[in-house]
Amino acid sequence: MVDHYFFMEEIAKATIELGIRGFLGHTIMTEDGPWVGRAEFEEGVNFVKRWKGKHPLVIPCLAPHAPDTVSPDWLMELKEIANEQNVKIHMHLSQSMREVRKVKGPWGRGARSPVDLLHRLKVLGPDLIAAHCIYIDEYDLKLLSQTGTNVVYCPSTYALGGTYASADKMMKSGIRVLIGTDARPADMIGELRAAAMTQRQLTGDPSAMSSKDLLRMATIEAAKALGLEDKLGSIERGKLADLILVSMKKPHMNPRFDPCANIVYNALGSDVDTVIVDGKVVVREGSLTRCDMGSVVKLGREAAEALTQRAIEIDSNLRQLIEGSHPP
Amino acid sequence: MVDHYFFMEEIAKATIELGIRGFLGHTIMTEDGPWVGRAEFEEGVNFVKRWKGKHPLVIPCLAPHAPDTVSPDWLMELKEIANEQNVKIHMHLSQSMREVRKVKGPWGRGARSPVDLLHRLKVLGPDLIAAHCIYIDEYDLKLLSQTGTNVVYCPSTYALGGTYASADKMMKSGIRVLIGTDARPADMIGELRAAAMTQRQLTGDPSAMSSKDLLRMATIEAAKALGLEDKLGSIERGKLADLILVSMKKPHMNPRFDPCANIVYNALGSDVDTVIVDGKVVVREGSLTRCDMGSVVKLGREAAEALTQRAIEIDSNLRQLIEGSHPP
Repeated sequence: MVDHYFFMEEIAKATIELGIRGFLGHTIMTEDGPWVGRAEFEEGVNFVKRWKGKHPLVIPCLAPHAPDTVSPDWLMELKEIANEQNVKIHMHLSQSMREVRKVKGPWGRGARSPVDLLHRLKVLGPDLIAAHCIYIDEYDLKLLSQTGTNVVYCPSTYALGGTYASADKMMKSGIRVLIGTDARPADMIGELRAAAMTQRQLTGDPSAMSSKDLLRMATIEAAKALGLEDKLGSIERGKLADLILVSMKKPHMNPRFDPCANIVYNALGSDVDTVIVDGKVVVREGSLTRCDMGSVVKLGREAAEALTQRAIEIDSNLRQLIEGSHPP
Repeated sequence: MVDHYFFMEEIAKATIELGIRGFLGHTIMTEDGPWVGRAEFEEGVNFVKRWKGKHPLVIPCLAPHAPDTVSPDWLMELKEIANEQNVKIHMHLSQSMREVRKVKGPWGRGARSPVDLLHRLKVLGPDLIAAHCIYIDEYDLKLLSQTGTNVVYCPSTYALGGTYASADKMMKSGIRVLIGTDARPADMIGELRAAAMTQRQLTGDPSAMSSKDLLRMATIEAAKALGLEDKLGSIERGKLADLILVSMKKPHMNPRFDPCANIVYNALGSDVDTVIVDGKVVVREGSLTRCDMGSVVKLGREAAEALTQRAIEIDSNLRQLIEGSHPP
């Protein structure tokens, strides 16, 4: 799992408790966020220093939020720290037209786009995991490709929001494109199918983003982006045993011809029967082995509902938190 | 379930055995199909006569394949029989450019499109369930709307094939649009989400095909298309108890705010815990109650594999049956 946002210390602890592998960063914002300012900057850097080398399941990274919410000075400073600490940077890039407009104004100091801004700040490159890259032009495409930047495509979220990224075009331009779940339920198999659907509808090409391409993006390409292809991302002697077992029992997985096609076009997340991390079974028959999933879901649901209720009591306009939490 | 193709007699028997409800037709083709000719015409008509009123779970319909594979004379004849027998017609319409080209030639006798051909033959109307309508223009849209024709949108299949139907536009033009699974695994919940994704990406409008629209299409609108809205499609006193129970237990269904949004954006087919048809439980905890699903899957898989093997022995080029059975 690669994630960045707030309360990362707790997520790091939960990652270890559940026995999964987390590439985590505490989000840093100069402005426009729920938590902004120098305290968050320090926490983002300290999170990296606290967790580096501490536990094999938690690999920290630096996580500036986006080019329009983190100042160019901070981005430069963070890049230096990333080099020093030898960690990846995980951030949003070219996610909205607002971002593009802000960067093209005085904020961007002459940059022609968010991608161009990160290029000028020397943040682009194989050590950057850049989510989105929706609003990019040919010049941006060339920069992303030439610098070896890793791009994360989150198909359902974009499509449900009425937009898209040119993921197939990026892939064909030599950019390493990975698949992300973003805000949607974290069902990676569903996202692989969504990626095939959205990119083929977009390009008109039924051979765009083949099932083999998509499985590579979700495995070995992701490992390469993290610089861990010697340990993760394929089944090979000497690598860590991070594996899933997909059940082929149900009617929708039969008959069985091409296994890649079967997983990408037919499988549901619920067909993932077993998850093994570093040789240890952390999901068995679809349930977490190290905690009672029912109690966790109940606690989470109650906390979310209580929080929403409190927010609505303070501001009744926030009722849309309930009704508008998804596209209508 | 609404379905038409070959071996419908067996499917009708299986429908009853499993206790599900089937709206079924034996496919009729004049040319270009695996089974074509007058014998199939007779079987299609006899299927209707044999099953009409025989069993509450099997509602027969007439199923000419498509405007380019069934001659206009046969279509007229079938429409008369449909009127006489008071059954629906279920067929493909405007599915391919090949169909459009063929109908625009001598085959179509002056029709400007497949939709126009069916209009001239008086086949359009509320008694037609027309799957696809991909290649249509403004004139076709008007005909479909004015005649009250029911259109079935099959989002995954089109998107994976690099194409789309303008389903949102059809809906907004007053056409009753339903959701179909076509060749993909018959996961209606996945198709609802696919419909939202594909139409929003297509239109750029994140409010296109709301979760409420989609749930209506899959329930009461489908019942209306079948002329059975007094018996099916909503939970009301006096209607038949055809229901599904969706489990909200798993993490991806929590927290719970808008239940429509939760089902369309988050649920998996595997969250359907219970299926009730006419008050009888036919699926419990995700498994069919009236047969051993494991044995059926095994039999089906073995049959498919043996059949494929035999075909390849006759013609080794058919190896693509295995490797190309899905888009690559």
